[in-house]
Amino acid sequence: MNADQNSRRKFIKNISLGSAASIISYPMLSSCAAPQQNKDKLGIALVGLGYYSTDLLAPTLQETKHAYLAGIVTGTPEKETAWKDKYGIAEKNIYNYDNFDEIANNPDIDIIYVVLPNSMHAEYTIRAAKAGKHVICEKPMALNAQECESMIKACKENNVALSIGYRMHFEPNTQEVMRIGQEQVLGAVQMVCAGAGYRETRKDHWKLKKAMGGGAMMDMGVYSLQAARYVTGEEPIAVTAQEFRIRKELFTEVEETLTFQLEFPSGALANLHTSFGMNMNYLDVRTEKGYIKLDPFSSYNNINGSTSEKTLNLPQVNQQATQMDEVAVCIKEGKPLRVTGEEGLKDMKVVDAIYRSIAEGNRVSLV
Amino acid sequence: MNADQNSRRKFIKNISLGSAASIISYPMLSSCAAPQQNKDKLGIALVGLGYYSTDLLAPTLQETKHAYLAGIVTGTPEKETAWKDKYGIAEKNIYNYDNFDEIANNPDIDIIYVVLPNSMHAEYTIRAAKAGKHVICEKPMALNAQECESMIKACKENNVALSIGYRMHFEPNTQEVMRIGQEQVLGAVQMVCAGAGYRETRKDHWKLKKAMGGGAMMDMGVYSLQAARYVTGEEPIAVTAQEFRIRKELFTEVEETLTFQLEFPSGALANLHTSFGMNMNYLDVRTEKGYIKLDPFSSYNNINGSTSEKTLNLPQVNQQATQMDEVAVCIKEGKPLRVTGEEGLKDMKVVDAIYRSIAEGNRVSLV
Repeated sequence: MNADQNSRRKFIKNISLGSAASIISYPMLSSCAAPQQNKDKLGIALVGLGYYSTDLLAPTLQETKHAYLAGIVTGTPEKETAWKDKYGIAEKNIYNYDNFDEIANNPDIDIIYVVLPNSMHAEYTIRAAKAGKHVICEKPMALNAQECESMIKACKENNVALSIGYRMHFEPNTQEVMRIGQEQVLGAVQMVCAGAGYRETRKDHWKLKKAMGGGAMMDMGVYSLQAARYVTGEEPIAVTAQEFRIRKELFTEVEETLTFQLEFPSGALANLHTSFGMNMNYLDVRTEKGYIKLDPFSSYNNINGSTSEKTLNLPQVNQQATQMDEVAVCIKEGKPLRVTGEEGLKDMKVVDAIYRSIAEGNRVSLV
Repeated sequence: MNADQNSRRKFIKNISLGSAASIISYPMLSSCAAPQQNKDKLGIALVGLGYYSTDLLAPTLQETKHAYLAGIVTGTPEKETAWKDKYGIAEKNIYNYDNFDEIANNPDIDIIYVVLPNSMHAEYTIRAAKAGKHVICEKPMALNAQECESMIKACKENNVALSIGYRMHFEPNTQEVMRIGQEQVLGAVQMVCAGAGYRETRKDHWKLKKAMGGGAMMDMGVYSLQAARYVTGEEPIAVTAQEFRIRKELFTEVEETLTFQLEFPSGALANLHTSFGMNMNYLDVRTEKGYIKLDPFSSYNNINGSTSEKTLNLPQVNQQATQMDEVAVCIKEGKPLRVTGEEGLKDMKVVDAIYRSIAEGNRVSLV
């Protein structure tokens, strides 16, 4: 660990977010630009009021210590009323997609959390940046690496922070798995196997539409991919991928199931899968001296696992609360973010290569 | 379960091999041809006195109830003396590779167990069959499916039994996993992940030589492949495979690590790996309603696992004893074998397709 990493680690350890923060060790941090005015809690506006905003983020923002639900952006007038009543959101903090850019003039909104379909991530992240607002963008960051780069550029140019909604980075057991893998506590990581999927049965959902950024890889596969990257702490140098489609009538545009392999510089391999055809959620890592397992590994709660040496029984946290609170603290204090736009970009480079490998039937080199 | 399967199951249940046999449920059985003379124990001759014969089979044959170590075939004169002294083998039951075929005239030898390098399996199985002896042949059955077919043909023509050394079929916890998977106790099997490997460091071993039948797939990969087949109870309809070679100086002829995917008629998938570069041994099965895990899954002992509903704690057995005793009983009584040559052939058809997929860079259809 170099001095820079060490000082980052010390900083992260000192953030007062409760017990979870004390074991944080993930080194992918970069500085966000614009320290905020001295607010106690930063105001977050949720853009897109689907399931994740409704059932996870909004309730969580009633508990967070450093952020609160200040505003919403929705194209559905009924939701405006319902959310205003339920959460006491000020009328002036409610936007639709026509007047979204006026959010630039609203000092109540510090952070815009983009929770839209994947195809809209880039547009709304860039518009939020141009409105001078910090951004949290849900995963996957965008449709492809090129979009990610334009999002990062827009946020830099407008001096705003950009974080990606990788909540597992804020989960204590996952952080311990990262530490064990990256610090080679059980020797070098040799093989990572992970499966993330659920059975999708909705016929008209945007996740089944290619243009909207649908597909199992985009939605669930990024968890398997993330796991391989955060356990090894390495970037893959090559990718191979295979597609399997059983319910051809449902999956006319996007993949139902993918398997994919990642080669890492150290020689570690990952053999991963993701699916809209089956429920699965597990991570199995084989190291020189043992194993690390999480089952489930990317659920909202009950992250459960063990290594060849011990049971992982670190506290279960509200992952979204831990995530949003830490992002808010970093922005308030002008400190480096745990999960940056660059981190999202790294994944999308691999996702691009996975789709290219399937299209071309080849191994795709990433170096 | 049809009537034929039911009667087979009843038969197997009635074989008096101790507690292990009482939970046997694997339906891949076929009749062997020639009931033996009324011997209490059948005489086995081991061909090839390497590690597996020396450390596992010979000691085990001192414990078996229905078979005993009657003879040996070796090309090393010193081994003749050492084994004769250690196990009290009669001089007339010791053969070398020049006089091997004279074994035809030796009534002490009922079964020839071929434990030679893989490239010699076909030749010695066929010569054993022509000598009128029943055969157990170690896994993998041969170099390719074509050799397997000639072995099966020779055994049929000479009216002798042919079994393959898949000891996991005789292991109670593995049998329970087969039952749970095949009978869909936890719903249909959807994804099978298995890894089998060890770190090979010997520079001149035959397992590194292609012509000798070397390679991780041949040696360890067949365990992963077997698992996918015995958990689903299905034959794959297509194969994709990828090769990874880190220690290029050691693996000049054969693969160090393979990942491979199997598509099954039911829609189940397997994403498997095998390696001579890393130690790993685990099976993870995701079903509609839960999971089945074994870790390790193909070791000689301490088979350990659980499902989403229970811990698997069936008795640990001497797998080789259970295997050889059951084969001997089947031969004595002219009853169907649990693991036939056809079972070995099924694997080698897939192995052939795996190598073809790697050579061609394509999905290989098996139907």
